[in-house]
Amino acid sequence: PIPDSLNELLAQYGGLVGKVVAFVLAFVVVWLVARVVLVPLANRVLRERGYDETVRSLADSVFGALALLLALAVAFTVAGFGSIIAAFATLGGALALALGFAAQDLLANFVAGVFILKDKPFEVGDWIEWNDMSGRVEDIDLRVSRVKTFDNEQITVPNAELANNAVKNPVAYDRLRQKFVFGIGYDDDIDHAKSVIVDEARSNPDIMDDPAPDVRVTELADSYVGLQSRFWISDPSRADFARVRSNFVQAVKERLDAETIDMPYPYRQLTGAVETTATVTESSASPATDD
Amino acid sequence: PIPDSLNELLAQYGGLVGKVVAFVLAFVVVWLVARVVLVPLANRVLRERGYDETVRSLADSVFGALALLLALAVAFTVAGFGSIIAAFATLGGALALALGFAAQDLLANFVAGVFILKDKPFEVGDWIEWNDMSGRVEDIDLRVSRVKTFDNEQITVPNAELANNAVKNPVAYDRLRQKFVFGIGYDDDIDHAKSVIVDEARSNPDIMDDPAPDVRVTELADSYVGLQSRFWISDPSRADFARVRSNFVQAVKERLDAETIDMPYPYRQLTGAVETTATVTESSASPATDD
Amino acid sequence: PIPDSLNELLAQYGGLVGKVVAFVLAFVVVWLVARVVLVPLANRVLRERGYDETVRSLADSVFGALALLLALAVAFTVAGFGSIIAAFATLGGALALALGFAAQDLLANFVAGVFILKDKPFEVGDWIEWNDMSGRVEDIDLRVSRVKTFDNEQITVPNAELANNAVKNPVAYDRLRQKFVFGIGYDDDIDHAKSVIVDEARSNPDIMDDPAPDVRVTELADSYVGLQSRFWISDPSRADFARVRSNFVQAVKERLDAETIDMPYPYRQLTGAVETTATVTESSASPATDD
Amino acid sequence: PIPDSLNELLAQYGGLVGKVVAFVLAFVVVWLVARVVLVPLANRVLRERGYDETVRSLADSVFGALALLLALAVAFTVAGFGSIIAAFATLGGALALALGFAAQDLLANFVAGVFILKDKPFEVGDWIEWNDMSGRVEDIDLRVSRVKTFDNEQITVPNAELANNAVKNPVAYDRLRQKFVFGIGYDDDIDHAKSVIVDEARSNPDIMDDPAPDVRVTELADSYVGLQSRFWISDPSRADFARVRSNFVQAVKERLDAETIDMPYPYRQLTGAVETTATVTESSASPATDD
Amino acid sequence: PIPDSLNELLAQYGGLVGKVVAFVLAFVVVWLVARVVLVPLANRVLRERGYDETVRSLADSVFGALALLLALAVAFTVAGFGSIIAAFATLGGALALALGFAAQDLLANFVAGVFILKDKPFEVGDWIEWNDMSGRVEDIDLRVSRVKTFDNEQITVPNAELANNAVKNPVAYDRLRQKFVFGIGYDDDIDHAKSVIVDEARSNPDIMDDPAPDVRVTELADSYVGLQSRFWISDPSRADFARVRSNFVQAVKERLDAETIDMPYPYRQLTGAVETTATVTESSASPATDD
Amino acid sequence: PIPDSLNELLAQYGGLVGKVVAFVLAFVVVWLVARVVLVPLANRVLRERGYDETVRSLADSVFGALALLLALAVAFTVAGFGSIIAAFATLGGALALALGFAAQDLLANFVAGVFILKDKPFEVGDWIEWNDMSGRVEDIDLRVSRVKTFDNEQITVPNAELANNAVKNPVAYDRLRQKFVFGIGYDDDIDHAKSVIVDEARSNPDIMDDPAPDVRVTELADSYVGLQSRFWISDPSRADFARVRSNFVQAVKERLDAETIDMPYPYRQLTGAVETTATVTESSASPATDD
Amino acid sequence: PIPDSLNELLAQYGGLVGKVVAFVLAFVVVWLVARVVLVPLANRVLRERGYDETVRSLADSVFGALALLLALAVAFTVAGFGSIIAAFATLGGALALALGFAAQDLLANFVAGVFILKDKPFEVGDWIEWNDMSGRVEDIDLRVSRVKTFDNEQITVPNAELANNAVKNPVAYDRLRQKFVFGIGYDDDIDHAKSVIVDEARSNPDIMDDPAPDVRVTELADSYVGLQSRFWISDPSRADFARVRSNFVQAVKERLDAETIDMPYPYRQLTGAVETTATVTESSASPATDD
Repeated sequence: PIPDSLNELLAQYGGLVGKVVAFVLAFVVVWLVARVVLVPLANRVLRERGYDETVRSLADSVFGALALLLALAVAFTVAGFGSIIAAFATLGGALALALGFAAQDLLANFVAGVFILKDKPFEVGDWIEWNDMSGRVEDIDLRVSRVKTFDNEQITVPNAELANNAVKNPVAYDRLRQKFVFGIGYDDDIDHAKSVIVDEARSNPDIMDDPAPDVRVTELADSYVGLQSRFWISDPSRADFARVRSNFVQAVKERLDAETIDMPYPYRQLTGAVETTATVTESSASPATDD
Repeated sequence: PIPDSLNELLAQYGGLVGKVVAFVLAFVVVWLVARVVLVPLANRVLRERGYDETVRSLADSVFGALALLLALAVAFTVAGFGSIIAAFATLGGALALALGFAAQDLLANFVAGVFILKDKPFEVGDWIEWNDMSGRVEDIDLRVSRVKTFDNEQITVPNAELANNAVKNPVAYDRLRQKFVFGIGYDDDIDHAKSVIVDEARSNPDIMDDPAPDVRVTELADSYVGLQSRFWISDPSRADFARVRSNFVQAVKERLDAETIDMPYPYRQLTGAVETTATVTESSASPATDD
Repeated sequence: PIPDSLNELLAQYGGLVGKVVAFVLAFVVVWLVARVVLVPLANRVLRERGYDETVRSLADSVFGALALLLALAVAFTVAGFGSIIAAFATLGGALALALGFAAQDLLANFVAGVFILKDKPFEVGDWIEWNDMSGRVEDIDLRVSRVKTFDNEQITVPNAELANNAVKNPVAYDRLRQKFVFGIGYDDDIDHAKSVIVDEARSNPDIMDDPAPDVRVTELADSYVGLQSRFWISDPSRADFARVRSNFVQAVKERLDAETIDMPYPYRQLTGAVETTATVTESSASPATDD
Repeated sequence: PIPDSLNELLAQYGGLVGKVVAFVLAFVVVWLVARVVLVPLANRVLRERGYDETVRSLADSVFGALALLLALAVAFTVAGFGSIIAAFATLGGALALALGFAAQDLLANFVAGVFILKDKPFEVGDWIEWNDMSGRVEDIDLRVSRVKTFDNEQITVPNAELANNAVKNPVAYDRLRQKFVFGIGYDDDIDHAKSVIVDEARSNPDIMDDPAPDVRVTELADSYVGLQSRFWISDPSRADFARVRSNFVQAVKERLDAETIDMPYPYRQLTGAVETTATVTESSASPATDD
Repeated sequence: PIPDSLNELLAQYGGLVGKVVAFVLAFVVVWLVARVVLVPLANRVLRERGYDETVRSLADSVFGALALLLALAVAFTVAGFGSIIAAFATLGGALALALGFAAQDLLANFVAGVFILKDKPFEVGDWIEWNDMSGRVEDIDLRVSRVKTFDNEQITVPNAELANNAVKNPVAYDRLRQKFVFGIGYDDDIDHAKSVIVDEARSNPDIMDDPAPDVRVTELADSYVGLQSRFWISDPSRADFARVRSNFVQAVKERLDAETIDMPYPYRQLTGAVETTATVTESSASPATDD
Repeated sequence: PIPDSLNELLAQYGGLVGKVVAFVLAFVVVWLVARVVLVPLANRVLRERGYDETVRSLADSVFGALALLLALAVAFTVAGFGSIIAAFATLGGALALALGFAAQDLLANFVAGVFILKDKPFEVGDWIEWNDMSGRVEDIDLRVSRVKTFDNEQITVPNAELANNAVKNPVAYDRLRQKFVFGIGYDDDIDHAKSVIVDEARSNPDIMDDPAPDVRVTELADSYVGLQSRFWISDPSRADFARVRSNFVQAVKERLDAETIDMPYPYRQLTGAVETTATVTESSASPATDD
Repeated sequence: PIPDSLNELLAQYGGLVGKVVAFVLAFVVVWLVARVVLVPLANRVLRERGYDETVRSLADSVFGALALLLALAVAFTVAGFGSIIAAFATLGGALALALGFAAQDLLANFVAGVFILKDKPFEVGDWIEWNDMSGRVEDIDLRVSRVKTFDNEQITVPNAELANNAVKNPVAYDRLRQKFVFGIGYDDDIDHAKSVIVDEARSNPDIMDDPAPDVRVTELADSYVGLQSRFWISDPSRADFARVRSNFVQAVKERLDAETIDMPYPYRQLTGAVETTATVTESSASPATDD
């Protein structure tokens, strides 16, 4: 049987040359067609659906790789090695899966990036807050976005963190409500304090008159009665509302002082009995109270 | 053997042209049939089952992609490249799986969106609370929902966060119970304080008489006895119950003052022995106690 | 070779018509049989095993989809496109898997819903506590359950949250134990205080005599000796045990006052040496101590 | 070619009837054999290995389903639709996987239930503590266990929570050590206090003499020296050791008072200088100290 | 065509009997060979590599199941139902996977158990600390280990918790360092206090002289200067080092008292101005200062 | 039949030799071609796309392994053992998957490393902050990066931790904002304090004049009014802004002292009634106030 | 047909003997070749790439198992049971996957161990800190590493915990910065205190002069001004820097005392009005102030 199989081998080797030629020809033809037809077509479809440049160049790479795989597969089949494709598909699939698992956090960022670029839940320049961070969006890339904090630090954020968490935009609407709790003494007149606070809010030009500023009794705390003031600021994305808030708080504080409404320190109500051993020096002059 | 295989190759190339024609024809026919029959049919079934426009346009894209895949598969089979399909199905499946894993958080939002749009656990305009956020639903999209906080901030929430967490709607029913703890002194008469609180609740027009307001002794705290008042407000989605609560708390506080029921500061019971070194100035005039 | 392949193509096209007829016939027959036999049979088996309507209508949809798939598969095989089924099964399986992963949190709710409806760990009307929430079950659906809090808020809970967490029912049994810690002074007689507390528990008609109320010394705290009272209430699901508890606490507090057993404020034992600079005004009249 | 294919179709239809008969016969035979032989055999093997009724009835359902699948598979093969089985196996496998993933938390409970019923890490009536919950086991089911808290509440616990967490049984052994820290003053004699505590432990009949009670200096705290007493109680599952502990603590407290060993309040060591403005009323009578 | 197919059926049925015989014979032969050769061989290999009895009996069950599967597979192939095996392998694989996922936490315990029994990171009798628990290992099983706390409670720990967390053995070496912080006053001499502490450590027979005890200034706290003493104890697994530590702390405390080195209470440095309204009773007798 | 099968076996063995020769030849040829053509080509493509040396040497190893697999697969097919490839592909895929899962955290670091080296979200020498750590990047490797803390400690960070978390670069821009809250007394003039703080910021040469320093009232705290100063520093990556900040804070503190603006200690507002038992020693000499 | 099939069976049985012989021969040959060629080759390649003994012995086991599988597969194919391999590959793959999932935490430790042994991010003897633990590496194994704490306890750490977390080596460089905050009074001269601290750092021989020690004002705390001293220590891995730090802190503390710079206790600024009921005993002798 050995000569037979050698014969067969020679025949096989001869056939192999033809197979290699067929392989190369099939590969080149299919690959060229795919690159010239498939990739530009996919690109155009994406452009028509409004995907921007960044997403489309990613799609080009992906479809390029698919074209390569297709060309290889057709070439192997034409050359008669169809069963290798099946095996490689299985093994390749498993490897792709294993790698995909390992890289899933990273890949998720790209998928999230495509959706952020397409759906625009926020855009460059928006003020966003997520988890415990906040800042203005500076740049949206496929994998990461860059956010500039109000302290001018740069945060590089993976896109999945922005797509899979609740993201807050405090200045998306044309007005914004602010709240501040003032604590007055238990002996003060609540209605008086409320009218004083509303009065100061009304006299502040940066605070809206409609919806009107408002005061609520929200707390009977250990040492004070908590009055929560609520006021509205228009066009918050432009106005520096931290400044408005600062001015309002200062004005109310000075007004409460002027009206002799107390803003008490933490109280301690003392009781019980203490022994004291006192050494007393009497001085007839009035003491200096210069502290 | 080489001429043979060249012959075969020529024959193969000739066959290839026929195969390409068969491929193109089969592809076009199956694809047209699928687009014209399958997609509208699926759309109609979904419409009959009450899915709204957003879900149906998603379904159109999905079924369109399936039609494309089906047409490709039939075309390849007709052209005699059946084994390529099997290999691509394996590899494509693995890639779809890997991508699906990477994108699972994002895809989960679409699935959640379909259920939210179909089952309507909440609708646009509802007041919802979830995790530590709350606001009114402004817009429900397939991937995200938008919620407007009571401070007029915009929160973009991935739908999965709303579908897989307990979501609370505080004003789903026609009345709502509110609770507030008043702390009175250890020396005050508990029954007196209770009747005063119930009295004020009854005299508040915004608080319901039936179910009647109620007071419970819930705490013997460090410095006070805690009385928890419970009262009901009707039609909470319309009424501003934060205002009702504020008025009630202010009224009870003023009434307790009038009845000389103490709302004590934190007590410290002193004991022990302290040495003092005192410098004393005697003044016969009565001191000014204007603080 | 081209004319040959064209001939083949024509023959193929002719055969295709027969195949399409075979496809349609096979599909219709198998699908009808499956819908008429399989689905009602499954439904009846489920009904016999005690699954309720909600679960059975879900099962109908699932078996309907399976019937469709079966009919498609048989039809493709009869029409001679068996290899397409294999490929589609692979790809479809991968897609189903990917989608199933993405939707696993949502699907888990349906599976949990089936078990809750079948096993009834709790039923509509039960008082349940889970994680940090509690309320009465209002409605059990396949995906979510609705719970009404005691403040009359509505919570929509995904069923998986209820099936995979420990769920507590405080009133499942015919009596319930309550605990409350009273803090007495370090100088008070512990046995006296204990007998006073037990006495008050016995004289409360809502507290059971058997098992008897009981008091334990559980803490030697900073400023008080902690006595934990334990008492039983019968038929807790009907009785308002928050009221019983409130009455008991108030009664014990008033009794301890009457017996001059101290419930001390937080103590501070002072030591050290302080310098004081005193300005003293002597007044021969007795001071007003009206505070 | 059409008539040909019609002829073929007719032939096919004729053959189909035979195939259907073969399908039904094969299904019934295989299914009966499997139900009559396989299922009882598996049940007996499980019974011999000590699995209880609950597990065996689950196994019956599982093996019944397997018998159904086997019968279907053999029937399809006999009827010549072998390739459909392959496709359905792939797709069915994927669906099973997807559903299995979605339901993995629920299924895990059943697996855990089998191990709890087989290995008996705890049994009905045992006192167990896990996570932050505790109680007596009332009932162990396949999916959940029910635990009755010492306050007579019912907790329904998924079995996986009990099988995959450390579970503590405080009364598994015939004696149990208890610890309690007594805080004495910095000026007290430590050895005296230690002997007093050990003395009281020895004179308590419920505390074991061997191993002997013991006292350790464990803390030099802000305001006290911490003495940790350690004592042993025999037969803890029957004895009410909360009562023993309460009696011991009360006895030691009263003894320390009798021996004038201080149990100090939190100290504050004062320093610094305070200005005081005093209004003094002199009274020759001794003041009432009735507070 | 019907008679033909009936004929075929009869032929098939006849062939079926032969197939069943072949099936049974092949099953029995392969299974016996596997049980008699494969299982004992695997058992011996494991024994030679040092796996103990518990692991080997698990391996026996696993290899027994594999033998059953092998026998079934060969029998089906011999009987000509090879395609059923492929389908069942696919479906069975998917089911195994789904079940494996659901049970992964439980299975992980068995795998961890094998490694713990083989590698012996700790053995029965060792003192281990992991997460926030500690105790002596009492028993190591395949799925769980049992640990007895120093209070004589029993903890049942899943093995994965012990294999995948850092586990600390405080007494693995022949000596152990202990630390204790003594807080002295800001006015005390630090060097004096250090020498006193080292002195007491040296005079304690249970504390090693080499490595020498040592004292470090580690804190300038609010009210004290923190001196951290460090000392070594030999043979910690036998010695009761909690007792050594207690004795050392007591000795140092008494020595610091004797040397009049202060261990201060929390200080408060007072400032500010207080108004007092004093009612003074003068007593010429010296007051009793018996507190 | 035995002689026949023996004959077949001999024929088979003879054929095996030829097969082995074919196997070795095919393996060597394919492997050499792949190593000589495929690997250098891939390397050049990566170099053209800007991947650096570290990534390319990883790619070389990966493509080398692929070449080996390809050569093995072709060799097995040529030798007629195609079905073994399929089986090994399946099993190998599953093993790769299982190993890939187990190693997914480790592999993720490599994937992250490739992206960090390619996209350069930060480079060697950058100051980065992530989670709760910070330092200067010292070295970026494929699996880990090394960061040197400002205390000169070395942190080895897995790359996935840097690629999948938000990473902050505080000095990415040419200026940086700093904030510091000064607390002044409730009795002080807020405007005066604000002007003092702005004045000190302007007179500090390291603080930018444009954007101008700014002061906001942000808190009405228990014992102080919080003024938040905000100032900008240019070229933060070079300037030692901790020093600028220190100088600014010291200057403002000394200026506030000079302007007699109070920076108050925590207040306690005392009330209530204390019994004192005083032992008084009168001394006519003025007391020594040497503390 | 029965005799026919019996005949076939006999023929089959006869063939089976030949098949079994072929099976055994093929198994032995392939296995020997693989063990003699493949395993030593892989071992040598690993040794050339610098993997140490531990990793190579793991690789030997893995390649040995692969050789066994290969031999089995070839033997089954030679014996004509190729389809069994496919089925077992599928099922075996699924089982491997399921087991791999269950054991993924354990396997991850081995993979991590290979990387730690190859890349040496730390070596035996290094001081490492990770999560909240620290100590010196004592031993690096494939699955776990052992770390000896500075208190001489042994921690067994799974390698994945060390490979997938940031690991800090505080003494990797030739110098280390230490920080300590001293709190001085609000009335003290900040510049004076700064020069005193720098002076003490310079006079300490263990503190480096270059980089120079430095002091920053970092806090205006409630009761003190925080001065953060920063100083460098050379050769930290050898020097006992806890001792250097202790000496420096003690020296600065004593120097600040000598310079009468205050290190204040927590302040309380008192205000308000207290009623006192004083019983005064006058003593003409000076009181004993011996406390």
